Amino acid sequence: MASNSFGNLLRITTFGESHGTALGVIIDGCPAGIALSEKDFLPDLARRRPGQSAVTTARKEEDAPTILSGVFEGKTTGMPIAVTVQNTNQKPEAYEKLRSDHRVGHADATFASKYGHRDHRGGGRQSGRETVARVIAGCIAKKILPKNLRIIGHTVQIGPFHATAFKPETIEKNPVRCADPAIAKKMEEYVLKLKSEANSVGGLIEICVKNPPKDLGDPVFGKLKSRLADALMAIGAVTGVSYGAGFRTAEMEGQDYVKDPENFGGMLGGISTGDDLILNISIKPASSIGQVAKEGRHDPCIVPRVIPVAEAMVALVLADCYLLQRAYRS
Amino acid sequence: MASNSFGNLLRITTFGESHGTALGVIIDGCPAGIALSEKDFLPDLARRRPGQSAVTTARKEEDAPTILSGVFEGKTTGMPIAVTVQNTNQKPEAYEKLRSDHRVGHADATFASKYGHRDHRGGGRQSGRETVARVIAGCIAKKILPKNLRIIGHTVQIGPFHATAFKPETIEKNPVRCADPAIAKKMEEYVLKLKSEANSVGGLIEICVKNPPKDLGDPVFGKLKSRLADALMAIGAVTGVSYGAGFRTAEMEGQDYVKDPENFGGMLGGISTGDDLILNISIKPASSIGQVAKEGRHDPCIVPRVIPVAEAMVALVLADCYLLQRAYRS
Amino acid sequence: MASNSFGNLLRITTFGESHGTALGVIIDGCPAGIALSEKDFLPDLARRRPGQSAVTTARKEEDAPTILSGVFEGKTTGMPIAVTVQNTNQKPEAYEKLRSDHRVGHADATFASKYGHRDHRGGGRQSGRETVARVIAGCIAKKILPKNLRIIGHTVQIGPFHATAFKPETIEKNPVRCADPAIAKKMEEYVLKLKSEANSVGGLIEICVKNPPKDLGDPVFGKLKSRLADALMAIGAVTGVSYGAGFRTAEMEGQDYVKDPENFGGMLGGISTGDDLILNISIKPASSIGQVAKEGRHDPCIVPRVIPVAEAMVALVLADCYLLQRAYRS
Amino acid sequence: MASNSFGNLLRITTFGESHGTALGVIIDGCPAGIALSEKDFLPDLARRRPGQSAVTTARKEEDAPTILSGVFEGKTTGMPIAVTVQNTNQKPEAYEKLRSDHRVGHADATFASKYGHRDHRGGGRQSGRETVARVIAGCIAKKILPKNLRIIGHTVQIGPFHATAFKPETIEKNPVRCADPAIAKKMEEYVLKLKSEANSVGGLIEICVKNPPKDLGDPVFGKLKSRLADALMAIGAVTGVSYGAGFRTAEMEGQDYVKDPENFGGMLGGISTGDDLILNISIKPASSIGQVAKEGRHDPCIVPRVIPVAEAMVALVLADCYLLQRAYRS
Repeated sequence: MASNSFGNLLRITTFGESHGTALGVIIDGCPAGIALSEKDFLPDLARRRPGQSAVTTARKEEDAPTILSGVFEGKTTGMPIAVTVQNTNQKPEAYEKLRSDHRVGHADATFASKYGHRDHRGGGRQSGRETVARVIAGCIAKKILPKNLRIIGHTVQIGPFHATAFKPETIEKNPVRCADPAIAKKMEEYVLKLKSEANSVGGLIEICVKNPPKDLGDPVFGKLKSRLADALMAIGAVTGVSYGAGFRTAEMEGQDYVKDPENFGGMLGGISTGDDLILNISIKPASSIGQVAKEGRHDPCIVPRVIPVAEAMVALVLADCYLLQRAYRS
Repeated sequence: MASNSFGNLLRITTFGESHGTALGVIIDGCPAGIALSEKDFLPDLARRRPGQSAVTTARKEEDAPTILSGVFEGKTTGMPIAVTVQNTNQKPEAYEKLRSDHRVGHADATFASKYGHRDHRGGGRQSGRETVARVIAGCIAKKILPKNLRIIGHTVQIGPFHATAFKPETIEKNPVRCADPAIAKKMEEYVLKLKSEANSVGGLIEICVKNPPKDLGDPVFGKLKSRLADALMAIGAVTGVSYGAGFRTAEMEGQDYVKDPENFGGMLGGISTGDDLILNISIKPASSIGQVAKEGRHDPCIVPRVIPVAEAMVALVLADCYLLQRAYRS
Repeated sequence: MASNSFGNLLRITTFGESHGTALGVIIDGCPAGIALSEKDFLPDLARRRPGQSAVTTARKEEDAPTILSGVFEGKTTGMPIAVTVQNTNQKPEAYEKLRSDHRVGHADATFASKYGHRDHRGGGRQSGRETVARVIAGCIAKKILPKNLRIIGHTVQIGPFHATAFKPETIEKNPVRCADPAIAKKMEEYVLKLKSEANSVGGLIEICVKNPPKDLGDPVFGKLKSRLADALMAIGAVTGVSYGAGFRTAEMEGQDYVKDPENFGGMLGGISTGDDLILNISIKPASSIGQVAKEGRHDPCIVPRVIPVAEAMVALVLADCYLLQRAYRS
Repeated sequence: MASNSFGNLLRITTFGESHGTALGVIIDGCPAGIALSEKDFLPDLARRRPGQSAVTTARKEEDAPTILSGVFEGKTTGMPIAVTVQNTNQKPEAYEKLRSDHRVGHADATFASKYGHRDHRGGGRQSGRETVARVIAGCIAKKILPKNLRIIGHTVQIGPFHATAFKPETIEKNPVRCADPAIAKKMEEYVLKLKSEANSVGGLIEICVKNPPKDLGDPVFGKLKSRLADALMAIGAVTGVSYGAGFRTAEMEGQDYVKDPENFGGMLGGISTGDDLILNISIKPASSIGQVAKEGRHDPCIVPRVIPVAEAMVALVLADCYLLQRAYRS
């Protein structure tokens, strides 16, 4: 009920403000005996990090995670795994002028209303920085899942540019994380133009899960699609979630819909069939534009940086359901 | 964790198969002192019922709810409210020939895999009939919310037809529940044509919440948009959920996005602002087509019947968050 | 947080007032494929029933359970199992004179304060009748647990009489459910004397679990002893819970304590070791005495009737932990 | 379901092994606007600390808590409050010889069985050191509760010595935390004698809550007494929990029971009445005796050190119920 936790059998609890001394996460429910060290977190943290390319924010964050508990002699023990990351880039003074400003499209006033006070330093818990904790947790979730499972997020649209080809090996080779190299180039140029104009843009991400276990999710509440929608909508920038044919079903006739199993997105009756899971999420443009954007601390296009976060959330849902299913069908 | 419950402070638990003797719901956490009787459920049950018009299934269901507990002298007591509805239209023999069939696009095989056995009588818990329980619960949720709050669902697209006008008083006056009477007529004709072809079609629903309380939802997990996406995706036919500008944000620039507060859909930072909530859900075409559809038990277009279910799920989320917010800000 | 549910992977939700039309329970999370019918509930319901002997209340309750869902062709389906029992013995007029009375030692005034209204008909949800639902659920829980597991509750003290022998085969052969036949006779005479005086008495129950699975429970919160204490204290008449040496540890020296493994009660570090679980619960005397007792509707000694309820609560905890442990160690 | 969390609206999650680098707690659900700093934790941490007197272990622990999040300008923000404490006294080499030993009465073998591996360094999460996190959380819980509420734990029995007087002002003035100064002296001498013999002893603690809010707890599951029993049994050394007349009710007659409201322990029907809450917990003697005890790292009598932990657990339950009750009766 308290709301900084996510999951059931595998449950994470995150803490920390972007402008505080540290942030972190407790991962509870990870089975014992899984090899784990801090370096396991680094690749995905690097994919999430600001400043990784010209198309994202120039803000620097150094994410050096420390495991405080739950690992002994290189393996998980079944005890809660606490991981913290120091915030080395705090600049409270930079926020001082915000003490009396409420930024359009930000949650500042919303927070002030809900909590009866105001932390003028910015979003705090709603900062994208909180997602560091989720990426760390997602790395652990992936280790619980079957080894051949792959979660592949990639950008399929930015502004007017739509990917048409799918070459997964190219995704990490361009700054927009698009699987269509030709379109990726156009997306990149477009974002750089917007950046020069202190503007921003949204986009569309597809997340494909290869080799998902079947039988995950429940028939009524707790459908796999419900859990995934909950998880992905818990990312600040996400404005929509769909699976399979998604919003295209609004204009589909049944005889066409049932012909192509890809339309089902790997789930029937809310339960995974074993076919690839296919999800789409829409991302809004960052609201920090104009003068604020010119100061260089905000993203013209957060889409590529959302990808590792979305993958982490999907991994957390799948690992939780995977443990759950073992309980009922051992 | 067991998955037939939904909600926290206001929690519902549903039970019953479409082909069993009864279905029902327990609503737990309803405050004491609220006037309630069975007749409060009837209008929304009528809106959900099959056979209400030519555009939906001709199947008959008589939904006569009985309150078994939690109400005394016409008022809620704070105790769990159990409501049951007898299934008067069971035809087990009609399902007998399905004993060895798995229907395309249905969850029959998925169920068989997950539970290690097969109930050949059809979806059972995944039947749309289960939503009777949710509509009942939603009626109670609405009574917990502020009196001036209104939840208005309406069809904005069916196949190629998009509503453009918004005349809310017309929604319940046409069988497709569209707020644009001219388009509604076209939608209706289109659905009747598909019906004659044993075909079906999907659609798009907008749910607008007028006068929502502000401060609902949480900043990280349990964002209002997350809870709503979870709730709406828990409806079998829903393939996508978005709020505010939704999937259109994929092509929006930040300077345009922040200009129009409607783009925010009534939520900032995952928390309601007090502005109207705006949600969209896409609905898939019913998979029961061809011969099965010809037997008349399935819907050419379930979109209008999904509306009261979606409204109920939204009401349940809002009432739960409303109680929760009182805990923290009394 | 709504409070009429108990358990996690195996979760029950109960409803119904003692003076309403029906009561019941939904059991959610029962694995599929378990043989189940209404007659499975009857033996334990008979053990809980009032009027079973001269030492308990003469009030009659006919408990004819009906399974509404979750069972198909004699086996559980994995769907929620709803079971209802009609209340055939409602006498609202008998309660009419209570409209303005608050009974000493009862929760009437407490309810009025908490819920802001008053149901003068008596305890309602707090009536012992609610435990019918738990006994039903407990029967299902036992079917989930390993076949050789046995839960044996028996009376070890009533008033000044303490059992010293343990002959389990005699427990169900005397009305006080004492495993010491000689003492049982004295207990019975003592209770009958109190009954003639419109008085009541408390007692002490031991619950022994033979062949419990090891590894149940968690190291910090959710210790097996915590879950059992929570469950047993959820029985209205229970005033204390202990395990192993229990309150005798207050005067024990460590060198004596560690010598006898029975002192550990089958749990170390909050986790079952596989040794027999040993629990004790103290039961308060019914508060309905004097004139009310003379009218014959209340128990001079509820101890023997608490036993099947306590066994059911223990079964529910063990089955829940058993499913949980499978999730983590498959 | 993951088990290192406790509570609902106010939920804590603890982490950390006694021999790791740090331990800590996240407190989620604390309302905004409460004055809080690290020094608020120090008095209760001092009361829990080993080495505070000759009657407890000589082991030294320095508990310097650091708040990492959730507090801004001296007040809580409504965000999760993370507090960590470094372990400065790790001696892994001291545990090396335990690599192949399983200690009697300890959970070492239990852990090895449950988690499929063994952390030979000792209890780890089951070490009493984990309770540092709970004491910290309890300090925050107390700040949520009404200002005039007092939670007073004191020792009423150690071995053969029973307190008879109750002078609350003397509790913190003797090392056994007994409210009867004359008996306290005898308890102290007795413990010192046992210490010299490398032996240990259990005891009995009463926890009295003055000025508790009424209306806390729920009628069926989640009774206040259930929640308190769950909480107190989650302390490793606790072997029994009772309230009001407790185990004495086993021999009480109803006419005596109802005469003295103290027998009800401040709860009727599972709900607080507003009268003082009275709870008793029995504590087992530490199992670390003989040679291990001679090495000076274990307690001859942990009873006085359990008191602040028990008070913290009671505070957590009450604060959680207090928030919950506000939700339903605003």
